[in-house]
Amino acid sequence: VSDRGGGGEEIIYGRRPVAEAKRGRRRVRRVWTSTDLDAGELTRLAGSPDHQGVVAEVDPYPYADPESLFEGPAALVVALDQVQDPRNLGAVCRSAEAAGASVAIPSRRSALVTAATCKASAGAVEHLALARVGNLADWLGRAKEAGAWVYGAEAGAEVPYTQADLTGKVVLVLGSEGAGLRRRVASSCDLMLSIPARGRVGSLNVSAAAAVLLFEALRQRDAGAQA
Amino acid sequence: VSDRGGGGEEIIYGRRPVAEAKRGRRRVRRVWTSTDLDAGELTRLAGSPDHQGVVAEVDPYPYADPESLFEGPAALVVALDQVQDPRNLGAVCRSAEAAGASVAIPSRRSALVTAATCKASAGAVEHLALARVGNLADWLGRAKEAGAWVYGAEAGAEVPYTQADLTGKVVLVLGSEGAGLRRRVASSCDLMLSIPARGRVGSLNVSAAAAVLLFEALRQRDAGAQA
Repeated sequence: VSDRGGGGEEIIYGRRPVAEAKRGRRRVRRVWTSTDLDAGELTRLAGSPDHQGVVAEVDPYPYADPESLFEGPAALVVALDQVQDPRNLGAVCRSAEAAGASVAIPSRRSALVTAATCKASAGAVEHLALARVGNLADWLGRAKEAGAWVYGAEAGAEVPYTQADLTGKVVLVLGSEGAGLRRRVASSCDLMLSIPARGRVGSLNVSAAAAVLLFEALRQRDAGAQA
Repeated sequence: VSDRGGGGEEIIYGRRPVAEAKRGRRRVRRVWTSTDLDAGELTRLAGSPDHQGVVAEVDPYPYADPESLFEGPAALVVALDQVQDPRNLGAVCRSAEAAGASVAIPSRRSALVTAATCKASAGAVEHLALARVGNLADWLGRAKEAGAWVYGAEAGAEVPYTQADLTGKVVLVLGSEGAGLRRRVASSCDLMLSIPARGRVGSLNVSAAAAVLLFEALRQRDAGAQA
């Protein structure tokens, strides 16, 4: 805590992101509000007009240890392959935090936890275990060795997600909407699951798909606990 | 079709929104792409830089008849109370279309189907039955008279959504994140449901909540059909 003013600081903005950072794990070094600065200066500091009158300088985002995510007999993890939109990453993080799950993202070719991610997550990233993994396929292999079932989400997959056992230690792997899962990532999954759709467009946004899968996992776990 | 150049046209933008409009219900009057105009001119036409090189002039959005939404014995409808962010409306529309559901929004104090809504829905609004209702509470009353069960989503509600019967004719009512449901809208519901959360922030975005509720309804309907 001796690096006040030193390197590595990050900027976040928005009422809930800053409020959650204050009760979260990283140090909030400085806060500017609309009583300190006018809107234009806040926009310049935030790099965005979406600051809602609150901008903060915070310590770097505390990424989790990738191996820690699949500890525990009922660990529930969302792994994102090549999801490059920070808003989609933030939306997935918010649902994962609400579901008591954690999140893994590749170090490269993926959105990182930027101010836009914090905003889209409504500050949930401050309380979430989120890890960057060097090679997602290798990490999925280690998750399987640790006893996890690894399910990939794929529009055309034969098995509907409601037919899979999502209790116990589970990793749910979702890809970007355009590209889906990379081949090596898909072949690291135990089973591919679909979310059957009925419309003409008929595909879910990655964050909606993550929410549906996560809360189906919770439903199955609760049903098992009551049985 | 004699009003070419006449009033009432709307602008949409983005690759998928324009592609879905072309195979949808309203006339696409004119399309501009990056071969016709430079990016700055497309941005000016679209009123947004998110046009992906495609902007179109289309007929006005074809809103559905509000009473038509609850026709049919298994009608599934999402009603949104005071959801003012066009991106949230679009995201809900996308999930609803994928679930084979329809959407009702109040005429006032609600986001309408703008170009930003079309974009956030990935064009799904072009195939969705979406109605504007003058008074949401009154419309919910008529839905109940027509045999629908009306469920409101509320963070603190005692009954978890997985314990409710979501088969048959069902309306799911969701509010804005800040304000929740207005009192008269809430009191028009048969039952309030919660989506139990486990995290510290612990609340879902309205579009994630809609996706979870819609796909639980489909799960129950499929399970019933197989039983």
